[in-house]
Amino acid sequence: MKTKDDGKVKLIRRLKIVEGQVRGLQEMLENDTYCIDIITQTSAVKQALSGVEDALMEQHLGTCVVHQIQKGKQSVAVGEILKVYRLKRK
Amino acid sequence: MKTKDDGKVKLIRRLKIVEGQVRGLQEMLENDTYCIDIITQTSAVKQALSGVEDALMEQHLGTCVVHQIQKGKQSVAVGEILKVYRLKRK
Amino acid sequence: MKTKDDGKVKLIRRLKIVEGQVRGLQEMLENDTYCIDIITQTSAVKQALSGVEDALMEQHLGTCVVHQIQKGKQSVAVGEILKVYRLKRK
Amino acid sequence: MKTKDDGKVKLIRRLKIVEGQVRGLQEMLENDTYCIDIITQTSAVKQALSGVEDALMEQHLGTCVVHQIQKGKQSVAVGEILKVYRLKRK
Repeated sequence: MKTKDDGKVKLIRRLKIVEGQVRGLQEMLENDTYCIDIITQTSAVKQALSGVEDALMEQHLGTCVVHQIQKGKQSVAVGEILKVYRLKRK
Repeated sequence: MKTKDDGKVKLIRRLKIVEGQVRGLQEMLENDTYCIDIITQTSAVKQALSGVEDALMEQHLGTCVVHQIQKGKQSVAVGEILKVYRLKRK
Repeated sequence: MKTKDDGKVKLIRRLKIVEGQVRGLQEMLENDTYCIDIITQTSAVKQALSGVEDALMEQHLGTCVVHQIQKGKQSVAVGEILKVYRLKRK
Repeated sequence: MKTKDDGKVKLIRRLKIVEGQVRGLQEMLENDTYCIDIITQTSAVKQALSGVEDALMEQHLGTCVVHQIQKGKQSVAVGEILKVYRLKRK
């Protein structure tokens, strides 16, 4: 499906940016950047990953979950959403 | 429905405990308890509230969401779950 | 010290508001309010508690920690800050 | 200083692992891995970054902050710790 593939390509692009940010963190450490600036950047990377999580969750809810419930597999669907909802706090 | 009411009663009981913990925090401040101990307790109260959130989400997914999707209101259902999923990070 | 007492009084007032919010959550459950609205409010209460935590941490860093380090108890100070910094993620 | 360099080398190594995990996430997307499994892994990467943050904070508190307070720059030290403490919630 085209729409789905578009979403996939965009998410991979966002993760490539995250990968670059993580390499940037290594350089910051290498160059003895001030700790507070490194921690601030680490926090930005985690927020970027949370954004990817939100997009994945949106995709999951809009496709897989609807199918699961229509096929009567609602307890599987509910269990999985709860699992990632609990993880989100971490 | 009996099961639903049981869940409601249990959640209200858990929130009464949280209410007592919040009063306890006020007493800790009143008695000049060491800051670190108060912060540790504040964190425990937030975790208790997160536990209540998880139980509410479980109830929501197991009842409302299933009905919403069966009635074709899946975009409403998805939007609401995403909203609270994003809030969870806070 | 006056300033410190002022801070204490303000924090107790904020916790009284949180206590009222937790009672409000119980009423929402009692009145069968829509789950999503209750979860949204639970999240607001946790954010209010995080605000209290930030104020406590500010007070702690500005008074206790400075004294601890001046008295050579820096390993105690560092250990305690790290403890609450780790808890913050929860 | 040797100890400090050891810490630096270890942290860079941990970030190289995180970089590999982020590349792994891209492959999971490429291979159409089940959303829930990708989200679970995203959460693991964020936890690994939080671990790096904790180690950076420990290093910061044990060296920079102690020097700052001994030099009378306590308001700078306090402001910076509060800044990253507030970010931690994100």
